[in-house]
Amino acid sequence: MGQAAQKAARKLARLSTEDKNQVLLNLAALLRSDHADVLAANKKDYQEAKADGLEESMLDRLLLTSDRLNGIADEIERVAELPDPIGEVIETSSLPNGLITSRRRVPLGVVGSIYESRPNVTVDIFGLCLKSGNACILRGGKETIRSNTALHTMLRKALGDFGITTDAVQFVNNPDRALVDAMLKMDSYIDLLVPRGGASLVKYVAENATMPAVTGGIGVCHTYVDRSANLNMAVEIVHNAKVRRPSICNALDTVLLHSEVAAVGLPMIAKELTDSGVELHCDNRALSVLGPESSEAAIPANEDDWGREFLSLTAAVKIVDSLDDALEHIETYGSGHSEAIITEDDEAATRFLDEVDAAAVYVNASTQFTDGGQFGLGSEVGISTQKFHARGPMGLKELTSYKWVIVGKGQIRP
Amino acid sequence: MGQAAQKAARKLARLSTEDKNQVLLNLAALLRSDHADVLAANKKDYQEAKADGLEESMLDRLLLTSDRLNGIADEIERVAELPDPIGEVIETSSLPNGLITSRRRVPLGVVGSIYESRPNVTVDIFGLCLKSGNACILRGGKETIRSNTALHTMLRKALGDFGITTDAVQFVNNPDRALVDAMLKMDSYIDLLVPRGGASLVKYVAENATMPAVTGGIGVCHTYVDRSANLNMAVEIVHNAKVRRPSICNALDTVLLHSEVAAVGLPMIAKELTDSGVELHCDNRALSVLGPESSEAAIPANEDDWGREFLSLTAAVKIVDSLDDALEHIETYGSGHSEAIITEDDEAATRFLDEVDAAAVYVNASTQFTDGGQFGLGSEVGISTQKFHARGPMGLKELTSYKWVIVGKGQIRP
Repeated sequence: MGQAAQKAARKLARLSTEDKNQVLLNLAALLRSDHADVLAANKKDYQEAKADGLEESMLDRLLLTSDRLNGIADEIERVAELPDPIGEVIETSSLPNGLITSRRRVPLGVVGSIYESRPNVTVDIFGLCLKSGNACILRGGKETIRSNTALHTMLRKALGDFGITTDAVQFVNNPDRALVDAMLKMDSYIDLLVPRGGASLVKYVAENATMPAVTGGIGVCHTYVDRSANLNMAVEIVHNAKVRRPSICNALDTVLLHSEVAAVGLPMIAKELTDSGVELHCDNRALSVLGPESSEAAIPANEDDWGREFLSLTAAVKIVDSLDDALEHIETYGSGHSEAIITEDDEAATRFLDEVDAAAVYVNASTQFTDGGQFGLGSEVGISTQKFHARGPMGLKELTSYKWVIVGKGQIRP
Repeated sequence: MGQAAQKAARKLARLSTEDKNQVLLNLAALLRSDHADVLAANKKDYQEAKADGLEESMLDRLLLTSDRLNGIADEIERVAELPDPIGEVIETSSLPNGLITSRRRVPLGVVGSIYESRPNVTVDIFGLCLKSGNACILRGGKETIRSNTALHTMLRKALGDFGITTDAVQFVNNPDRALVDAMLKMDSYIDLLVPRGGASLVKYVAENATMPAVTGGIGVCHTYVDRSANLNMAVEIVHNAKVRRPSICNALDTVLLHSEVAAVGLPMIAKELTDSGVELHCDNRALSVLGPESSEAAIPANEDDWGREFLSLTAAVKIVDSLDDALEHIETYGSGHSEAIITEDDEAATRFLDEVDAAAVYVNASTQFTDGGQFGLGSEVGISTQKFHARGPMGLKELTSYKWVIVGKGQIRP
């Protein structure tokens, strides 16, 4: 499988933009109208998972419908519209000796992905890999193996219809966990591994993969309400960052409030959050500001609440005495994903942007914006919290490397 | 040491360009005129190594003289003159909702380096790390431990003279090999590991480091003389690529010749090489072209000669029947470092540049140009042959990451 993918990758690297887009548009059409096999396979996965007692939220994640397939097709059409990163000349210069050097963008080669229940990932990763000239090896969750197998057949048809090697997408249709471990050691064949799933999967991949792997998708995100914050703005941003979608990695986990605005600001923020069903885990000072009448929705925080990714309608709340204290708290407990300050003070904003070491740092906006689509990358394979190669949302360009191209007329080095 | 470096790195990240340059110029001045301790320490290292029977070429590598220190000082002054990469805004855009997003270049944090006999590496890595805002942890070879310790004292003085934390450069002044293994597991403290040395060191680091490491410095480099090559140009380029400095990673290892030009071209190339003392390991066809009179300098190649990095006055020679055969040979035996074609045919040149998968691909020039200084990066910490993060020579920018900076006016995500 690795050898076939590597061989296919060499062909994909030289595919024209038109060919790649034709396959993507063909795939979108198949998703919209030729999806009976996929829905039938998904139905079996769903029924079996339900019989196995899988919880409702997980069942919902694995479900495919015509509507959802249309949504996936929309996404694939968007990828077709994105500029092709391959072949782009990044920098070019003419040296005094007449040599012309440039850096030209090339694919990474073979991208591996290990993911959990959502079958849409099968199509999403393929689309981004194809557009960036990479072959891919996919390994989905065992509870969606029939759906993914049917989708894989569709991906191969989308390629084969235009005479493009169907080896461009390999699918591990065997649920044996040992195959994951084997995949993590395939550094001769896989150039980048993208885990998509919970913290334990990401951690397992980071610790065991022998090739580069994307570390990310885990966000312990803070919003700090500064002394000079516009409190109405703070209420709205904090609410959005927590409540819009509490289960994604850029959702707020901890609110830090400057002590000078806590007496007025905290009750406003707490009311808006608790009205939406958020449970607050508060330090002692925050609890005493909120008073005894809030005891149902606001309970004492314990040490584990700082640095915890809740992924649910829960938020930690802490009062700090200065921007420095807020920065120190974020440095200690943050995961380097997305961090925000709400302030009207330019100096505080500048210090926050300069000093917080995270993939995305915000002034006066919701951390839920951390997303490839929102940042103008078109789409994303994931969000990296590492500093090497790519940081933050990873789109098409982040699936590429470059080569130095040097054109001479007989130059030799003195 | 890791904690101290990490703490220092946070300060270095915010150092002004002026402060960094002052330290570098101070260091250059110390190297030129305040180097008695360094030379005395180096003398002891040299005498001990000589008594231990270290071979001449290794002794030469560890030797420091006033002249050599001046050369290192020149290099540090060049680094001071390079533009500061930190704070550079890579891309900025204003989204329809009014959010302003940009990517700002930041240091990686802490760079570790494990290297062998040349003590100049101690100063070079420090200079590049400081200019790019990174702290560093250095581990040199045991045969130069006195020299490196004295240089480390000088580096700390260069920092301390301007009140900058001397923790910015940590030196492991204990030759115990177990400390290398410990260093390779310090992923919580070291963001990038740069091995500088032979193939076995690079391989050991790649296999055992738990943090990202630069893979590179190993070059099995080919020069292919195409059917349409200007043969005089080919002679000159092949000679330069092999003979200028045979011991560096961008030096030629194998010459491939198209069979149509072999009868005329090979004797020309072989004469120029063998006149400079190069031993040729030839395939049968090349041997029969050269004839029996060349038997001293041209011997039969064995299978190991293809894909071998000679690092000496030896070259492998093979005759191929087509560009395709040359491409296939390079794909099979190349190490993805530097590869060249000599041709007057634009189509062949284009195919070679497109299809060879290497850090640097050349038309009509010597592969010995693969170098950060030659490519306009000013200097380099090493040459990467991996595709992740940086490929080819790694200069200041390649020691950086970026963060997304988002400035809003209260935007929330719908």
